[in-house]
Amino acid sequence: MPRLQAQVNFLLTCDQLKAVTRTTLLHSGARAENSAEHSWHLALMALTLGEYAPPETNLGRVVELLVLHDLVEIYAGDVHFDQSETAKIQQTQRETEAAARLFGQLPPDQRGTFHSAWQEFEARQTPEARFARALDALQPMLLTWGPGGIGSAAHPELTFGRVLALKRSALEEFPALWELAQGTAAQAVAAGIMPE
Amino acid sequence: MPRLQAQVNFLLTCDQLKAVTRTTLLHSGARAENSAEHSWHLALMALTLGEYAPPETNLGRVVELLVLHDLVEIYAGDVHFDQSETAKIQQTQRETEAAARLFGQLPPDQRGTFHSAWQEFEARQTPEARFARALDALQPMLLTWGPGGIGSAAHPELTFGRVLALKRSALEEFPALWELAQGTAAQAVAAGIMPE
Repeated sequence: MPRLQAQVNFLLTCDQLKAVTRTTLLHSGARAENSAEHSWHLALMALTLGEYAPPETNLGRVVELLVLHDLVEIYAGDVHFDQSETAKIQQTQRETEAAARLFGQLPPDQRGTFHSAWQEFEARQTPEARFARALDALQPMLLTWGPGGIGSAAHPELTFGRVLALKRSALEEFPALWELAQGTAAQAVAAGIMPE
Repeated sequence: MPRLQAQVNFLLTCDQLKAVTRTTLLHSGARAENSAEHSWHLALMALTLGEYAPPETNLGRVVELLVLHDLVEIYAGDVHFDQSETAKIQQTQRETEAAARLFGQLPPDQRGTFHSAWQEFEARQTPEARFARALDALQPMLLTWGPGGIGSAAHPELTFGRVLALKRSALEEFPALWELAQGTAAQAVAAGIMPE
């Protein structure tokens, strides 16, 4: 297949990310967010909140990782962040297969580039992957419990303590963002939209 | 207002881009695309098709411009690309006001950064803005008339000649993309999903 045609087919497959539904609602509460618009919102967050990353962080790379990070969900689906260890391992297996299937649609040289970026995000080792992961942890908190949010009636188990316990590992190395997450949760409790 | 709080409020306002409906359908035809997921798809296109930009093009900047380019639609709405000159002038006025209102929610130093990026995209002068604009012209063609597309029954006036006349100025300086657009339109006519 001609190179450009393979790239077009890949991009049209990727259109399906707009049909992958997340468990997070839009900030208005009108409907569930999908993974494509979520990825856009994270890229915008990287451009807006980049000053809270360590100075050596390559923010352009953060944006790249965020644009690509959820593509595997086209074949593997999205799962809620509060999962059993068994469910997490199964999801990792599904995502590994999905990555090979999806990035395999690209010309061989690009296959490696995209696959490496996704693996970098998943491995959470580089400064860029760590900051990207922190934004991914923060964004649904802001939509759900940020100023004007309506909370998460469908998930009453997400108490103040539970949410912060689940978010701590991604966020606490970025003090301003971790403080924001804690403040957001505290204000949500005070506003009656998050169980204590 | 503390700096980070202003940034959070801006990001939550930007969540509304997910509710701005475009005239383009998803590739499956299931529903209209929204401007947030469209912006994500363009960023992904820049990462996938960057090799068709001139070598001096800063692709990281292209991605930035694409992430931000439609934000003004939160207040100004989206309009179809086939508009009268009067409608285009009115839309430009609405978008200029929208940019001041939206970016004015950011801390003063970021206001200028974001506003400049949007103005750069709109002015279509830099290599980055020109490539971003070309992708923005190409993406709805691929969704609508690309392989597996269903055409645009709601817009029977979009004939082969009309579409290419409207797309030419954005695309013809990128030979591979312009050839792709012409080939896509020709195949759509052959498939009976685009009027001759």
